[in-house]
Amino acid sequence: MTRLVLAAGSTRTAAIDGISAAAAAPDRLAHTPAADAEILAYGRPVRSPVAPVSPDGCPTPAVVTRAVRERLSFPVTVVDSGLAEPTGAPTVTVGARPGDDIREPDPVPTAPGAFAAARQFGRRLPDDELLLAETVPGGTTTALGVLTALGEADVLAPDGADAGAVSGSLADNPLGLKRSVVAEALEASGLSPGAAAGDPLVALRRAGDPVLAVVAGLAAGALDADTAVTLAGGTQLVAAAACLRHRGRETPLRLATTAYVDADPAVDLEGAAEALDLELTITDPGFTDDHPAMAAYERGEAKEGVGMGGALALADRAGLPAADLRDGVREVTDRLLAGDEGGDR
Amino acid sequence: MTRLVLAAGSTRTAAIDGISAAAAAPDRLAHTPAADAEILAYGRPVRSPVAPVSPDGCPTPAVVTRAVRERLSFPVTVVDSGLAEPTGAPTVTVGARPGDDIREPDPVPTAPGAFAAARQFGRRLPDDELLLAETVPGGTTTALGVLTALGEADVLAPDGADAGAVSGSLADNPLGLKRSVVAEALEASGLSPGAAAGDPLVALRRAGDPVLAVVAGLAAGALDADTAVTLAGGTQLVAAAACLRHRGRETPLRLATTAYVDADPAVDLEGAAEALDLELTITDPGFTDDHPAMAAYERGEAKEGVGMGGALALADRAGLPAADLRDGVREVTDRLLAGDEGGDR
Repeated sequence: MTRLVLAAGSTRTAAIDGISAAAAAPDRLAHTPAADAEILAYGRPVRSPVAPVSPDGCPTPAVVTRAVRERLSFPVTVVDSGLAEPTGAPTVTVGARPGDDIREPDPVPTAPGAFAAARQFGRRLPDDELLLAETVPGGTTTALGVLTALGEADVLAPDGADAGAVSGSLADNPLGLKRSVVAEALEASGLSPGAAAGDPLVALRRAGDPVLAVVAGLAAGALDADTAVTLAGGTQLVAAAACLRHRGRETPLRLATTAYVDADPAVDLEGAAEALDLELTITDPGFTDDHPAMAAYERGEAKEGVGMGGALALADRAGLPAADLRDGVREVTDRLLAGDEGGDR
Repeated sequence: MTRLVLAAGSTRTAAIDGISAAAAAPDRLAHTPAADAEILAYGRPVRSPVAPVSPDGCPTPAVVTRAVRERLSFPVTVVDSGLAEPTGAPTVTVGARPGDDIREPDPVPTAPGAFAAARQFGRRLPDDELLLAETVPGGTTTALGVLTALGEADVLAPDGADAGAVSGSLADNPLGLKRSVVAEALEASGLSPGAAAGDPLVALRRAGDPVLAVVAGLAAGALDADTAVTLAGGTQLVAAAACLRHRGRETPLRLATTAYVDADPAVDLEGAAEALDLELTITDPGFTDDHPAMAAYERGEAKEGVGMGGALALADRAGLPAADLRDGVREVTDRLLAGDEGGDR
């Protein structure tokens, strides 16, 4: 049996002007991880007051993961990895608190404890395979923070590009801003790039977010128990893989992500996979542009998150026809929009 | 779609000598609701250090509910209704805290808030039908407290028996002790029997437990949303029904329980169902005594709990053969015993 475990949390890094959609819709953004967990659990928000759909109609990738789940019925477990707003989804507690802005000196003090508790939990889960997924606005910036602190800032950089590469959910990725936030973060923590090499708990605590700490802990625990692990996501999950490699884990690891991340010119996913010894599964959902939700993904928005790439890999493995998936995405999106009572109130 | 919602919590009333198995195995008992939630979620304990199996081999009814779930795949949501020990099962938060001994003056101050939050949550769940279930050691005593405070102490009493009747998980039900604890509880709160008639939140707060408050809140919310409600349990769920009737709810309600509760000479379930206008579904699991787990149930231990009667009703509705159910109960019990590393350590 394959279980999807979603680490859902927050970092105040997301509130930095220009990093994410924060400036446009701060309230909506703060509720996104809680709403994503509810969509995965129930098919729509239950306690969260907003539906995570961007102003131009791009819904959260939770919609895609849920659409697959409604057809394949895989179990989902949500781990509270520092949620800032209440969720109606059931969550497992590992002691994570919301992360602070990484430009503060000690933004994620709960990272080591959450890693340890998540590891214990991952070790005891009875499944054959875990898909590990994330939802944390601003998460690619903190992923870059972790990679940089580990000395892996160039692991995702395409040939000839500057070091400091990650993907992002905006069609126009503010990579320069992300790099300068990370530079400030390392300075605030008195770390030079690479100073946390071999010590990912320091990287996660000083320049990361609680979600990555939980994902890395879950993966470590599952590997302890010889449970197969698939990192289900994009460049944030590459940062989780780097944490595992920097703890000396040499076990083969799989990363399942979307064709949208693979197509992102800001990153070289194959290069990172080779450098970190990741077996890559890249799935194209076969979206068409006759529905605003799918058209937004085809334009390069969102790209990945909430286990979308992992869910697409499961759908592919199960032989789910692309047309069924598209129907599911339409259904879940329409349900989301129908239930949204005005959003940012 | 039918969802089972399990309210899992605790009351210090369970620690009173003789009320439950507490004296024999206090540590095991404190972990029981957390372990029950894990068994329902994962098929075995994950974080809980003990397997809830009585010294003479009677496993928690969670085993039966899980066995049905492994065959019918219905969704389960656990609501933290005052858990005293950590659980690895994902839980929804409604602000409930562990209940104190009901002989204290204000044992469940979180009851009104938890009722309100559970009601909101129950209102928003997207399902067609909810099965509402409980796990709380000592819960029949607090149920009797609630019934007595509402003036319904005789609702379960067989013809000619004294008022103050509830079932219990011990083969030898200490009903006299339960009545005297309830009498002390009402006195400590300055309530005479029936003083909380029409005001179940007072009854729940002064003489009840947080689990009953959550179950009553979930039911009220689901009924608000025209979601079908089945109270999945025995005499504790009768107390929840009494709370709804005392709030003026006249909607038809269903109660699904086991043949073991129905056969309990301490209670007249049909009489209570008539008095409270409950449509009864009583299911006999068809256990045989060739396995110690099933033999214990046939002796009258445990009887009900963790939604067992509701799960049996679902199994019946789906046409699950009794032999398949028995295989499932053997499997889950054996898995539990194999994973138990010594119990009360």
